[in-house]
This record gives sequence, C-alpha cells and structure tokens, in this order.
Amino acid sequence: MGHLPVNPSVNSPVNTGDGARIASSATARTLADPDTPFAVVDVHPMRRNIERLRARAARLAVPLRPHVKTAKSLDAAALLHPGTPCPVTVSTLAEAEAFADGGYTDITYAVGIDPHKLPRVIALSRRGVTLRLLLDSVEQASFVAEASRRAGIPLPTQIETDCDGHRGGVGPEDPALLDIGRILHGAGCLDGVLTHAGESYFAYTAEEQRSAAQHERDTAVAAAERLRAAGLPVNVVSVGSTPTAHAAEDLTGVTELRAGNYVFFDLMMAGLGVCRVEDIALSVVVTVIGHRPEYGWIITDGGWMAMSRDRGTAAQAQDQGYGLAADLAGNLVPGLVMTAASQEHGTLTARDGAALPDLPVGTRLRILPNHACATAAQHGGYHVVDGTRATYPPAPAIETFWERVTGW
Amino acid sequence: MGHLPVNPSVNSPVNTGDGARIASSATARTLADPDTPFAVVDVHPMRRNIERLRARAARLAVPLRPHVKTAKSLDAAALLHPGTPCPVTVSTLAEAEAFADGGYTDITYAVGIDPHKLPRVIALSRRGVTLRLLLDSVEQASFVAEASRRAGIPLPTQIETDCDGHRGGVGPEDPALLDIGRILHGAGCLDGVLTHAGESYFAYTAEEQRSAAQHERDTAVAAAERLRAAGLPVNVVSVGSTPTAHAAEDLTGVTELRAGNYVFFDLMMAGLGVCRVEDIALSVVVTVIGHRPEYGWIITDGGWMAMSRDRGTAAQAQDQGYGLAADLAGNLVPGLVMTAASQEHGTLTARDGAALPDLPVGTRLRILPNHACATAAQHGGYHVVDGTRATYPPAPAIETFWERVTGW
Repeated sequence: MGHLPVNPSVNSPVNTGDGARIASSATARTLADPDTPFAVVDVHPMRRNIERLRARAARLAVPLRPHVKTAKSLDAAALLHPGTPCPVTVSTLAEAEAFADGGYTDITYAVGIDPHKLPRVIALSRRGVTLRLLLDSVEQASFVAEASRRAGIPLPTQIETDCDGHRGGVGPEDPALLDIGRILHGAGCLDGVLTHAGESYFAYTAEEQRSAAQHERDTAVAAAERLRAAGLPVNVVSVGSTPTAHAAEDLTGVTELRAGNYVFFDLMMAGLGVCRVEDIALSVVVTVIGHRPEYGWIITDGGWMAMSRDRGTAAQAQDQGYGLAADLAGNLVPGLVMTAASQEHGTLTARDGAALPDLPVGTRLRILPNHACATAAQHGGYHVVDGTRATYPPAPAIETFWERVTGW
Repeated sequence: MGHLPVNPSVNSPVNTGDGARIASSATARTLADPDTPFAVVDVHPMRRNIERLRARAARLAVPLRPHVKTAKSLDAAALLHPGTPCPVTVSTLAEAEAFADGGYTDITYAVGIDPHKLPRVIALSRRGVTLRLLLDSVEQASFVAEASRRAGIPLPTQIETDCDGHRGGVGPEDPALLDIGRILHGAGCLDGVLTHAGESYFAYTAEEQRSAAQHERDTAVAAAERLRAAGLPVNVVSVGSTPTAHAAEDLTGVTELRAGNYVFFDLMMAGLGVCRVEDIALSVVVTVIGHRPEYGWIITDGGWMAMSRDRGTAAQAQDQGYGLAADLAGNLVPGLVMTAASQEHGTLTARDGAALPDLPVGTRLRILPNHACATAAQHGGYHVVDGTRATYPPAPAIETFWERVTGW
C-alpha cells in the first residue's frame, strides 16, 4: 500500500483524554483541531475564481450580479467586492433578509414569487431594499400588481424567460409575455427579463456551453425587444449560470450576468471543464474511523449528512462518487474516491487499480464535493484557510469562521 | 384536468400586502400560514408507528433503544416514553450532548469512535451519562483503553460486528474480535457487541427481511458467545435496523433492539413493505409557483434544499422520484410525483396517465419524502399537526414546533 504525506503527529490522538484538544470555532487553530466532519473554504482558489469571472465580465462589459445561494454567507460575499455591497441574487427570502441586514440594497430573488411571501417582500422594500422579483404567469403578475398598489410601493419585477426547458419561464414568443408585461407595467412594476440556462449543467463540451450561452442571451434579448416593441419599458436583461457565464462570447443587449457556484466550484463544474479540480474552494474534513481491507474500503466519519446526497457527477463521463479525497493541505490522494455514504459514514475506495493508501484510524482527509451548493447546505458555516499560507505539516491554519444563512 | 379538494380560500393570497399573513413559528395557526417550504410532522401516524414497534419489542421480550438520528429532537423523543427518558442511540456527539442536556443518561453513540472525539466523550461521562462507544479495530480499542485509564473512567464500549458487509465491523469469526475484547476488558471497558443489518434496506421481500433479521441476531449472539467462551464479559448484545426490527421473529440472546427511521417512516420503507404510505409522519409543505403545461409540469418552491437529494426509491420497484404529493390534510394526490428538483424548485408530474390536477399558483401541497432522515436534516425543526384533529378545509392546525439538533 502506498503512503501519503500525512504526518501522524498532526492527527494522532496523543492528547485524548485530557480535554485540551476540544476545539471550538473560537479556539481552533488548524484543520487538525475541530471535531470532524466540518466544512472548509480555501480563500486562495476562491479569490482566484472570483477574479476570473470579474475579469471576464469586464471584458464582456456586463456587470456581475453574483448569486449568493452557494456560500450563503455575508463573510464570503465580502470577497466579491471591495467593501461596497454589490448587486446580488438570492434563492430565498431568508438570504434576502440577511443580506439586507448586511447592507446590500440591490437584491434579485430569483425564484418565482409565491404570493404568500409578498408581505416579507414589501417589508424589505419599506426598509429601502430594491428587491427584484421573478415570475412567469399572469396569475402572479396580477398578485404582484395588486400588492404593489395596496402597499403604495411598485415592486420591481422581472419576467422569467425560458431558453431551454429547464424549469420555469415563458418563451420569448409566448403571448403571455406581453400580457404579463402589461399587467406589471400598469402597476409600475415591470423591471425586465431574466433567463437562466439551467440545462448548461449538461453541456459537456466548450462548444455546447458557448452555444447555450448564446441561446440564453438571444432568448433574453428577444423577450426584451418584444416587450419594448409593445411599448413596455425593460430596464434589466439578466442572464447567467456558472457554465454559460464562463462561456459567453457576446452579451450585446444584456445588462447583467449572474453566476453563483463559481465562487467555490465543484467536481460537476470540473467535469464540465468549467474549472480545474484545483480551483475547488470547498471541501469537508473527515476522519478515518475504520478499514475493511477485504472489500478495499476505508471508512470515515463523513457520510451524506456531511456531503449531501448529491450525485451530480453520476451523469458525467467520470463519476466521482460522493467526492474525491485529498490530504489536509488539499493535495489529491491519487485514485481515492468516496464511493458510498450512509448518514454518518463514508466509504473510500481506490479507483482504476490505484493502491489503497495506508491511512491509520485518526487520519484526516478533505473530501472535494460533487456539488458545492448541496454540500455547503449541510453545514452551519465554514472554517476558512488560505492555501497560500499553508505549510504541511502542520495542517493549514484556520483563519476564521464564516456563518451561513439557513432556512427560508 | 382533474380537480383536487383544495379550498382556494385556504391558500389564496388575498391578504398579501398587509403583513397579516406573515407567520412565525410562534404565531402560525395552520399549515396555510408559515411561508413554504417547511417540514411537518403528524403525531397521529408517529404515535401509531411508535406503539407498533413498542408492542412488537414487548412480544419479543427485548427492550428498545430507539435511534434518535432521524428526528434529532428532544420533543419528538418525548413521544417514545412516558416521561422517563429511555435508552437511546445517537449518530453524533452533538445529539449525545443535547440528549444529555435533556436528561437522557443511557446513550449509545453508534458510529465508530474517532480518537479525537474522546475528550467530549469523557466530558459526558463525567456528567454522569453512560455513553456507550462503538469500534471495530485494535487501534481504536487501544485508544479507548488508554483514554479510560488516563481519565480514571472506564468508557463502556461495544464491538461492532458485521453481519452483511454493509460498512464497518469485524466478523464473528475474525481473530480481531477477541484481541479487541481483551484490550477493552483490560481497561474495564468491554460493554458488549453491536450489529446493524444495513443491507436490510435492500431486502425487498418479507422473507428476505426475516432472513436478514435472523442473520443479524445470529451474528451478534455468535460474537457474544465467542467473547464469553474466552472469558470476556458481554453485557449488551444489540441489534437492529428499521426493517429487521419489524421482521425479527426470535431474538433469543439479544439484549436490546435499535431502530430509528420507524418514528417517521418514508417512501423507501413503504417500498420495502415495512410500512404503508399512510404511516409516513414527515412531509414538506410546498407551494405551487408555476405551470409548464407543454411539458406536463407543475413547479413548486420546494427543491432539493427542502427535500434533500436523496433518491433512495430509485433502486426500488417503484421509483418515487423526490416524493409523492398530498394535499394539506395528507391525502395523496393520485399519481402526482415530484420528479425533478433544483435548489429551490420542485417539478411535479403525473404518473401512469393520471390527469395533471388543476392547482393554481399559491396552492399548497405536502410532499412525502423518500428518506425521512435525509429530508428532516434539511430543516431546523418541524411544525407539528395531529391528523386525528384535522378538518379540511381549513388546513390542519399547527400544535407546536419541535426544534432539531444540528451539527456534529
């Protein structure tokens, strides 16, 4: 069996029994300290990922509106801008409220509005937040228009436009587009159109991704032009997904670009070629708790509760199981894959004839996730390291802890 | 399209805009009030599920040690006993600490011990909690024995015995069994043996489940007998999983029965025939936010963030997607299945030629989960209803809110 560069002194339980190794978020010093499993963010690839898309959007001359649904953290979002809160996209009103508390004033809630949630929307508007809504039906437009009139606050609202049959939205040729636009405009609520190329997660080549980006742009712009041709004002033409944001070559007519996953990236995005495995900023630290050499298994204390049940790479050319194993410094353990999960157990196996490494009980590993949004959601926050400062051994120092927004 | 017995007045957004319908946990009155998605527990099937296994264990003359990893709630656990905390099983030290705070003093931590966690184990022991550990290697036994000696507290420890190659454990014939037993006994730590027939989740017939239960019992008893024959004391012979606990016919030699999922049950257990769909006590309330009639889709605001990514029924004869849709009273909508999920969107489709029901935007549904443990983990707690008291319309009254234990 091969040997990893794991220094047993880092992970050994020599101090067990005296309580001195109990590490809380406040006292933890390195990735060897907190009890496992826990989520880690490395700000080194994260800053690189953010800069990459920022530069790209600058070249395309389109402002970014990052989607904060992946990290769901004000601390993480602070890396998106130099101190002045930027426009953001959210997936829940809980995120909108937390980001409003954090000083963000331009927020798009990119899930079709449930009329029951309008009181919270109006409460945010009354606090001075520009909360942009999304919808794709005459029913919803009528609710929003009525609520706006009653509240005396026009709620800025975008019409979801479908470019690929992924989930919601009206087609740019759908008669409902103009009906919705007129209802919204009548109440002073029409803000623009929004398109999300969700099927780009299944675009496996650069050419398919470019094509998806082009089609996403064309759909949004066509819908905007159709509304304008009917005399309806369109301020915002919003497009984006992590794959298309990184593939778009021409965004003429688009006013903003959205993407969220890119701050962390994950094995799905690496499988699509949108990033490299070394760009993945999120991982979960787990501990080896057993061995089944007769099956070729290493058992850890990180199961689906820590990784999520997401198996997004199962449909890709390279199925990455529940994730790839790396050492505490983030270096991949060649061929070691988390291939099974129960609630609090993970099973690691060697792939493609790789030797199963000799990892004693107590050894810690970082598991890179299939899907960052889903894995992050299993944790209350992130221990943060900076890969540029890591020396190994000892394990990377923990710089701080970032809390996540939870619930709806 | 067929029509459901959904009373639009319950779900209609007539009060939007005035703030009066914002419902917090404290003020929510019925399932029509809190913003969706949210988790619901119906105590009517839950009490029935608990009574069913209690009566079964009584017939088998074996005490129950319920696993609280599914509900992870002191309030839910209170239904397991008449006021006097019972022995429980936990999947994390966070659960052990929360249940210790709640007065539970006999707790089995049923995940192989990571030596790094021993300080927290010892801290619980010093509080007077009998925290029983699990392990399956000489390495771990040595750590536990050493930590016990240093602390001056023998930590009661069970040897995980493998009956079906599901994950951890030593075989009852493995030489390591006696080596581990001797190390533990030398430190006063040997408490017994524990077996979990995890593969019973793939036992698709009653006969296979009976056989799995018999084999689980035989394995545990054989390991116990082998230890005893070597002069080693065995107090606890623990077996269980939800399928085998409901299938076992003879538990001679077993001292306790574990099961966890049974308090809520789910579509996986229904698919195995361990329960009926109407026994499922956990669901997630979602709201219709759109329609794509051209695809036969109803879109809701409950995606994988609300349901989890668990697709446990995908391997069963009847794949239930991400769950089955019911109305707010819990009556199934015939043939309506949640077949796709993104982070905050669910897609419902009609199965087997069923008519897609006419469900306006704003209509609320309850989605029954594939896997209760995974779905429950996506929520901070449960709104609790009592199906025996439901009248419909109006929607079932919310009796109380139960918080969950989170983290590790």
